[in-house]
Amino acid sequence: MARLKYKAKVARLKAKKKKAIVLLSGGLDSSTTLFYALKKGYDCFCLIFDYSQRHKKEIESAKKIARYAGCKYRVLKVELPKSSALTSQKIKVPQGEEERKEIPITYVPARNTLFIAYALSWAEGLGAEKIFIGANAIDYSGYPDCRPEYYSIWNKLIKKGTKAGVEGKRIKIETPLIKKTKKDIVKLAVKLKVPLHLTWSCYRGGKKPCRRCDSCILRAKGFKEAGIPDPLLRM
Amino acid sequence: MARLKYKAKVARLKAKKKKAIVLLSGGLDSSTTLFYALKKGYDCFCLIFDYSQRHKKEIESAKKIARYAGCKYRVLKVELPKSSALTSQKIKVPQGEEERKEIPITYVPARNTLFIAYALSWAEGLGAEKIFIGANAIDYSGYPDCRPEYYSIWNKLIKKGTKAGVEGKRIKIETPLIKKTKKDIVKLAVKLKVPLHLTWSCYRGGKKPCRRCDSCILRAKGFKEAGIPDPLLRM
Repeated sequence: MARLKYKAKVARLKAKKKKAIVLLSGGLDSSTTLFYALKKGYDCFCLIFDYSQRHKKEIESAKKIARYAGCKYRVLKVELPKSSALTSQKIKVPQGEEERKEIPITYVPARNTLFIAYALSWAEGLGAEKIFIGANAIDYSGYPDCRPEYYSIWNKLIKKGTKAGVEGKRIKIETPLIKKTKKDIVKLAVKLKVPLHLTWSCYRGGKKPCRRCDSCILRAKGFKEAGIPDPLLRM
Repeated sequence: MARLKYKAKVARLKAKKKKAIVLLSGGLDSSTTLFYALKKGYDCFCLIFDYSQRHKKEIESAKKIARYAGCKYRVLKVELPKSSALTSQKIKVPQGEEERKEIPITYVPARNTLFIAYALSWAEGLGAEKIFIGANAIDYSGYPDCRPEYYSIWNKLIKKGTKAGVEGKRIKIETPLIKKTKKDIVKLAVKLKVPLHLTWSCYRGGKKPCRRCDSCILRAKGFKEAGIPDPLLRM
């Protein structure tokens, strides 16, 4: 009986909380974003995407992190064209070219656009008022859909193209990490008590991070500059 | 040998043609849009969405139309939240309220946004330069994502948020029906030789159209005003 009352109380408290959708990939940035949204008091619903990544380790990490955070989540299967090194086994993941101007072969066509569109649909359906995404325009891989101007156009689109927007109950995309360096993200993650040992950033799905792909190199740079050891490399 | 040569010739001609993605639902508007894009000389790839509609008749119609037109197609399964009369069996499809100001219960949260995001990803992956969608802002159901301003924001988003856009190979959304009345759409469909007997507009999936849902009423209005009998009602 006491337990039932407790459950009812938790449910009431949750119902009062503002809802948010969080795009969770299981990497450092999206996990930090989830804990940021929780800290801001949102009742977070995580969307995890299965888009035929080269490996499923990313999805497993994301699920573990959502569970660790006590959040509901849904894994959505998404069919993307096979033209990226991240979705095709035939294209090689490039190594260690940290500095360059071109958009890399790991770019998945309109991936963030599709993920945000899903988040928008779920936000409107579940009555959430925010969509949190861990996009970052500083220490990033050069993808066009990680830049602030892209997100400001999205917010205009949401206002014009949804029932919620037209009725004045605006859903907004939040990108709390967009102007942070990887160093700052690592520091924020530690402050927010993100379970860093559960996160996965490597483009490959080995037992340990490969330390050579773009994503590993960016992550290592962040941890090094923050003066914090990466728990994944100690194991 | 002759047949092989002929096939190679067809393949060469196809390779020269400009590619387009067409969002095909199997209804009057999207089918007319497909035939419009073909008439304009595009090599069309149709995307058909299975979003747990109340009935699968729509999907079957779309497949038949794509095959009739000799186009490649892909049925993509999409998980949407169950908050609309079109995706939930628990919510009743409203009947015959033709005039009203509110957005109806058949509105599926951010559906067009999600479909366009998919189309964009496939357009970029397949190297298509146009996305055709049969949105209509005149004789329509009052959905916010059917209006011209919504599509102009989308075109900005594509320019900023895709590799193609950043590199100057812009993908553009085309809405050839956006300012046409249903009457004009029916007339255009007849002119373009759209297989009207294969299309399906009714929100319900019966053997014959219900004649009472919004979609049936709009369709009937169009055929009546165009002075053309609807082949679906003759059968």
